[in-house]
Amino acid sequence: MSRLPLVIDERESVMSSKTLIDLYFDVISPYSLIAFESLLRYENHWPIKVNLIPFFLGGIMKESGNKPAMMVAAKMAYMSKDLRRNADYWGVNLVPPKDLIETVLNRGSLLPQRFLTAIDLQNKSFVEAAARELWARLWARNETIHTVDDIKQVAVKISLPNAEDLIAASNSTLIKETLKKRNNMALQQGCFGAPWIVVHKGEHEECFFGSDRIHLIADMIGCKFDGPHLPQHKI
Amino acid sequence: MSRLPLVIDERESVMSSKTLIDLYFDVISPYSLIAFESLLRYENHWPIKVNLIPFFLGGIMKESGNKPAMMVAAKMAYMSKDLRRNADYWGVNLVPPKDLIETVLNRGSLLPQRFLTAIDLQNKSFVEAAARELWARLWARNETIHTVDDIKQVAVKISLPNAEDLIAASNSTLIKETLKKRNNMALQQGCFGAPWIVVHKGEHEECFFGSDRIHLIADMIGCKFDGPHLPQHKI
Repeated sequence: MSRLPLVIDERESVMSSKTLIDLYFDVISPYSLIAFESLLRYENHWPIKVNLIPFFLGGIMKESGNKPAMMVAAKMAYMSKDLRRNADYWGVNLVPPKDLIETVLNRGSLLPQRFLTAIDLQNKSFVEAAARELWARLWARNETIHTVDDIKQVAVKISLPNAEDLIAASNSTLIKETLKKRNNMALQQGCFGAPWIVVHKGEHEECFFGSDRIHLIADMIGCKFDGPHLPQHKI
Repeated sequence: MSRLPLVIDERESVMSSKTLIDLYFDVISPYSLIAFESLLRYENHWPIKVNLIPFFLGGIMKESGNKPAMMVAAKMAYMSKDLRRNADYWGVNLVPPKDLIETVLNRGSLLPQRFLTAIDLQNKSFVEAAARELWARLWARNETIHTVDDIKQVAVKISLPNAEDLIAASNSTLIKETLKKRNNMALQQGCFGAPWIVVHKGEHEECFFGSDRIHLIADMIGCKFDGPHLPQHKI
């Protein structure tokens, strides 16, 4: 029996020549936004395929025993400058919410991350737009993302098909379990924060924490890091 | 009375056209080593002058309330891979000490950092060689750096003039106070870890934590980040 396929699937062949990169992200995390925009930009420049995976950062911090940077006063002050500089460098709009501690530590991102997981399972092509709009609400327009009404507004804004079903599904056991499973996948890979980036090289995977390892990822896949502004990208 | 100097000092004029960059470092910190080698390499490539400032990371952590990454198991496991990848990328030799926790948390770096401070005050041109040799002992050859005998071996290895005086001075009040003063300078700038990099742009200063912001520093001084291997650099 031959191991060769009878018909060569062209899409498969194109896909297999690209390096698959999983981006585990949470819209509560502004460094996830930097990684999201950077990797999606480089998807048009390098032979990579970015797989967006919503996960829940609150759970990752708890399970790994990590603490948010904002628990140390000097780190929090630094982070605000560092975010501004990174956002300027990448040309990403980023305005911290006015009530940062309430937003991050109390309101959290469980509902939006479940909503993104529901979209991911049922209408994956809308994950990018939904995530970008959630980030824009929290990290640009000082709006909230933790109420059902917030989520409805996102659905309308991005013209999400079957929005009502997806919003309802966000509270289903299936979605809750799927989100947990993804958190566990990341934890098993050694994750302790967001963004968490997994570069698949055949059987081998290399995991990166943060938005500041893109030059190392470039090196690993044999491409050149060309900075923030690529030929086809206009800001 | 004219404000113009009667004689223009050519060295002064060359210096003033360069951007001064303070590198606060501790040889206990491998990311400080990456920043040290990267910035010194770029000193031959960009119009910058790197000012090496030994400080004491243990004191910075304590005063800022920060905790070493190695206190979170997943962070420690990640750090080991991340260090390997960063060292490979920059072509820096880096082998973690076998008894890492004992080395970092218990033995510490107070004596070597006082020794470097004494050299800095009395024979500044030897700071680079002494620091590099201390790093090589701890982060390449699995040797210690916390005993007076270790320090003597470093002095011999780099042919340090007045070595005995400098080793004796390491325990003086002047040196202890100078080291404290430097820690306080960094803390006042918002420091919470190492390396701590201060870019002076006229009256204004921008502070960076870590070895992974060199592309942002490049942007700030209007230069291009050209990756790890510069024309004049051979590994």
